Amino acid sequence: MIKAGIVGGTGYTGVELLRLLASHPEVELKVITSRSDDGTPVADMFPNLRGRVDLRFTAPDMAALKQCDVVFFATPNGTAMHMARELLDAGVRVIDLAADFRIPDITLWEKWYGMTHACPDLVAQAVYGLPEMNREAIKGARLLANPGCYVTAVTLGFLPLLQNGVVSPSGLVADAKSGVSGAGRKAEVGILYSEVEGSFKAYAVKGHRHLPEISQNLNHVAAQPVGLTFVPHLLPMVRGIHATLYARLERPDTDLQALFEQRYADEPFVDVMPAGSFPETRTVRGSNLCRIAVHRPQGGDTVVVLSVIDNLVKGASGQAVQNMNIMFGCAETSGIDQIAILP
Amino acid sequence: MIKAGIVGGTGYTGVELLRLLASHPEVELKVITSRSDDGTPVADMFPNLRGRVDLRFTAPDMAALKQCDVVFFATPNGTAMHMARELLDAGVRVIDLAADFRIPDITLWEKWYGMTHACPDLVAQAVYGLPEMNREAIKGARLLANPGCYVTAVTLGFLPLLQNGVVSPSGLVADAKSGVSGAGRKAEVGILYSEVEGSFKAYAVKGHRHLPEISQNLNHVAAQPVGLTFVPHLLPMVRGIHATLYARLERPDTDLQALFEQRYADEPFVDVMPAGSFPETRTVRGSNLCRIAVHRPQGGDTVVVLSVIDNLVKGASGQAVQNMNIMFGCAETSGIDQIAILP
Amino acid sequence: MIKAGIVGGTGYTGVELLRLLASHPEVELKVITSRSDDGTPVADMFPNLRGRVDLRFTAPDMAALKQCDVVFFATPNGTAMHMARELLDAGVRVIDLAADFRIPDITLWEKWYGMTHACPDLVAQAVYGLPEMNREAIKGARLLANPGCYVTAVTLGFLPLLQNGVVSPSGLVADAKSGVSGAGRKAEVGILYSEVEGSFKAYAVKGHRHLPEISQNLNHVAAQPVGLTFVPHLLPMVRGIHATLYARLERPDTDLQALFEQRYADEPFVDVMPAGSFPETRTVRGSNLCRIAVHRPQGGDTVVVLSVIDNLVKGASGQAVQNMNIMFGCAETSGIDQIAILP
Amino acid sequence: MIKAGIVGGTGYTGVELLRLLASHPEVELKVITSRSDDGTPVADMFPNLRGRVDLRFTAPDMAALKQCDVVFFATPNGTAMHMARELLDAGVRVIDLAADFRIPDITLWEKWYGMTHACPDLVAQAVYGLPEMNREAIKGARLLANPGCYVTAVTLGFLPLLQNGVVSPSGLVADAKSGVSGAGRKAEVGILYSEVEGSFKAYAVKGHRHLPEISQNLNHVAAQPVGLTFVPHLLPMVRGIHATLYARLERPDTDLQALFEQRYADEPFVDVMPAGSFPETRTVRGSNLCRIAVHRPQGGDTVVVLSVIDNLVKGASGQAVQNMNIMFGCAETSGIDQIAILP
Repeated sequence: MIKAGIVGGTGYTGVELLRLLASHPEVELKVITSRSDDGTPVADMFPNLRGRVDLRFTAPDMAALKQCDVVFFATPNGTAMHMARELLDAGVRVIDLAADFRIPDITLWEKWYGMTHACPDLVAQAVYGLPEMNREAIKGARLLANPGCYVTAVTLGFLPLLQNGVVSPSGLVADAKSGVSGAGRKAEVGILYSEVEGSFKAYAVKGHRHLPEISQNLNHVAAQPVGLTFVPHLLPMVRGIHATLYARLERPDTDLQALFEQRYADEPFVDVMPAGSFPETRTVRGSNLCRIAVHRPQGGDTVVVLSVIDNLVKGASGQAVQNMNIMFGCAETSGIDQIAILP
Repeated sequence: MIKAGIVGGTGYTGVELLRLLASHPEVELKVITSRSDDGTPVADMFPNLRGRVDLRFTAPDMAALKQCDVVFFATPNGTAMHMARELLDAGVRVIDLAADFRIPDITLWEKWYGMTHACPDLVAQAVYGLPEMNREAIKGARLLANPGCYVTAVTLGFLPLLQNGVVSPSGLVADAKSGVSGAGRKAEVGILYSEVEGSFKAYAVKGHRHLPEISQNLNHVAAQPVGLTFVPHLLPMVRGIHATLYARLERPDTDLQALFEQRYADEPFVDVMPAGSFPETRTVRGSNLCRIAVHRPQGGDTVVVLSVIDNLVKGASGQAVQNMNIMFGCAETSGIDQIAILP
Repeated sequence: MIKAGIVGGTGYTGVELLRLLASHPEVELKVITSRSDDGTPVADMFPNLRGRVDLRFTAPDMAALKQCDVVFFATPNGTAMHMARELLDAGVRVIDLAADFRIPDITLWEKWYGMTHACPDLVAQAVYGLPEMNREAIKGARLLANPGCYVTAVTLGFLPLLQNGVVSPSGLVADAKSGVSGAGRKAEVGILYSEVEGSFKAYAVKGHRHLPEISQNLNHVAAQPVGLTFVPHLLPMVRGIHATLYARLERPDTDLQALFEQRYADEPFVDVMPAGSFPETRTVRGSNLCRIAVHRPQGGDTVVVLSVIDNLVKGASGQAVQNMNIMFGCAETSGIDQIAILP
Repeated sequence: MIKAGIVGGTGYTGVELLRLLASHPEVELKVITSRSDDGTPVADMFPNLRGRVDLRFTAPDMAALKQCDVVFFATPNGTAMHMARELLDAGVRVIDLAADFRIPDITLWEKWYGMTHACPDLVAQAVYGLPEMNREAIKGARLLANPGCYVTAVTLGFLPLLQNGVVSPSGLVADAKSGVSGAGRKAEVGILYSEVEGSFKAYAVKGHRHLPEISQNLNHVAAQPVGLTFVPHLLPMVRGIHATLYARLERPDTDLQALFEQRYADEPFVDVMPAGSFPETRTVRGSNLCRIAVHRPQGGDTVVVLSVIDNLVKGASGQAVQNMNIMFGCAETSGIDQIAILP
């Protein structure tokens, strides 16, 4: 059994990680920390876990965390970078669900995240945890940077097109829509029920923190710099990301459907839907799947890719468990093979 | 492996049964019928099942159904009663999720359901499938009547009070609220998104079909006729029933919390929450649990019980699988131990 | 033109008051205060008012408020009681949308609201602003206590029954459900979108602050003490209250429909719906109406009343304007005759 | 008073037209037809109109309609074209909210709408009713084609850019999202509450009927053919369209904010929001406004325009009343100056 700890489990990625790990056949949950809720039973805060998770939140305690084989950080940005070294030195593997280790270019990271990085040398050792792009490296990872939610949906959607050079790398558009749980479990007026329900808006058009991470991925798969406009929107629903992606086709004779199907043929968590499909976010709710459809409206030179994930699963905690499975040699689908709940 | 068939799987109880059975370690899905969708792959209609259920809908075919060990009817009322006998005669066990076999009083049934019953003799053999009330009988059932959704939430909430005679059997009030999926997957204006969203209403105050079934259960546990007012309401949400139950306390010295905890101590799917709790429907979403809290406002003589279930799981398909597990000697929680998805 | 001021206009009752007053033909908005948002244009915080309300929030300033004919307090409980005397002394009429002046029994008020009252003598002078119960007194009011939202829905539903002695005054049940806007515009985790959406729960069963106010009203109309169990619930929607009321009929030969129709025949804002109706909250969304239907299930001795309002209009700001209209001799419907938005 | 009739008032544009016309100071509602609901009081179907609209639906009757000054068609596509001539010949002005008269190119219309047009000659006489593009012609219109909902949001967003040639006319992207009321009030499984709630999807990527109408408008304002990719999506909410528009800037020194503000300076129903704004659909809910913001992310060469309307008001019935006001010489805002309801 893999002994697992969680730092900062009071947010939505935390409770989702608990849901998944509590049912994982090869994991034993040992410790979950929260400074503010020290002593509170986890199931008091998240009653869906009553009878399944008996732990209490405890104040962060390095000694207890060092007993684990793996520690997940479900913390705000800027937390894991202060604790990772000590855990790594003790032989614990670290999976950070926040952004601390996602961007190797420290200057770029510091600009977007507005803080000084505490351990640039560790960033260099970290492995970026998008299995569909980086599986081999993940197998040997000791410090894993779990990707952002928007990043996962957008990267998986553009990947086959850019990797094969069938679209122009410039003028890419990612019009992305996210459920509100992506904004976290923070007491802020902007995400109150009465502010969000029955309404829709764009935000962060000037620049969202996921933009440099997406660009980094797309540059990597295109093997050249790409030009991307990324506009995130807030959906009046809890879970789900839908990325609508636009690119200019440069090789009009490409069989786009075949391209996607072949690229993802062996991927357990990417489902290329039949030609003409419209993936609905509810078909991945609670599941670790990314479902994708590719379109070419009116047979023109614009490719439209529709890519959906559950932001808390494939976009966060499920992908973290997928990475853990790869790192520890478990079956990749172990503990994360739930079928989406519909309706 | 238990070979299972489903008749009429194109509604919400159908897709939920598929979700549960597809992951059940002891079940093999053999056939699913739908006259109107003969030939359609199940996963085309319900894409959440892509990669997990490879069956196509087929026109109802007795020969195929007779190959099964158990056949579930996820059909409208009045369908199972025409097919059950032939299956039972062939040794197949039958679980009806509709109302055909729930009411032994045929005259009463015909009055509320507005049709002539096709097989009154079979009703007499049917076992009513509320495990918390009837587990021993269920073990030997060949024909099982799965309870209604409102009925399950209301019965489990009143049961400890009436069984122990601590409340008056008259003047009971059940103010029940249901998510829209309880109305089924039918093309009707009244359950369109734009008719239901952002609004709330009562309905069927004159008399809902679940009323005689609830009364029958309460009469049984109280061992005397009860007087009940049942008012159902439609919630602007998909899944979940919340029953708010009112009764007049006749034994004011009763420890209500202990009464409920003791009654349900050995029940795997009833969670009596701590005193002072308010169960939220989301804490049972996608799970087979009924969570209950009992209150006595201002220490007065009115008992208030709050009882929540997922209408499609403990209120329908999950309870059907629970009954199947009991009938076939599987672990009672087999295949239905999913943790609720929150948020 | 009536010169109007608003103290504390950054909450939902504030923005709703602005919507109504900005279109009121006899009102001129002069000042709106907010300590925390001093200087911010109102339309920056509430863009629905762009082009219609040009005011900025200003720090509370008695001199400016004293220039008004009427000042509305859309503040938390415990604010108006500190400012009312000075305004009244200056000849300004005061309408408090909070609870400071609703309960003449100061001891009772202090127990439920957990603070010491600053001006018990003014409470004695205040007029309770439920026009359907108290219109004559409102005409001469200088200090008006605007009723609570639940209180309005529940009182109007029980009123004809209790006033005419057709039901037992004991054993009353008010099962009430409110949209989330009733909880205000405060940064609290419990009313975040992801906490509330798709779920339903009861709360405050032990005792809600509206209970003593409801009891006070019902005692008044029944002319004797009543026994009431009040259970509020939180609906996953923004606007609307639905009260489902239960009482035991003592005069079974009463024509309940006629009783309600006659009692409210001259009321511009109470709509008694036809027998057999189920009022939907959406039919009063954005409107000042209370719609009511009365039922007697299965012809038994339990009366069920269904009463719906928009909690921000008839339950707060609309009723405040209705009271202002009565106090200033305007047509009672002036500025509050909007038709509900459906769908 | 303008005597108004409505043909086909049982859908959402019908009830919205009734809400607006019932409060319009210069309109008298004379007749509303519905073949299927002949005899039903309008307020029985739409209880929000109780006490405000006393009409009953009647079977279509030319004699009664000819008594009107104006007849609105809130019918499915293909109805108005069979009735318009007779009404026009009788001197009645006709406003069609459907698509029968929007596309002068009859061949194109017949291809997209899949029927033979009944009166091509009338199409040539019809005036396209987007006031911001066509006000002068509308003044003299006898037969008016009211624009589509998506079309209004997209055209108003691109208009200043294309009219002034500051963006490339090729490679335009309109990523549009609509609330469910845009799909109408039809008994179809795809728009049931339980199918739509909590989920998001694209649809009609292959080609939506609004595409040729949008292209026609954009070609007109650009004075050359444009290249447009239009992807509509279904939002889990009732009202509102949000169009996110992308274009390649060709004159990088343009002051985009000033361009939009100047173009719409005199428009009563277009609100250009301050630079950096994100219009929310709720800020136009129930109102006839289009709110627009223009962005240039990271100062690059992609312009992003955010344009929101209420699809039932500015996208349908409100715009129809605006057109009527222009045609009959009323104040353009008469009867349609409601402030949006927020929250």
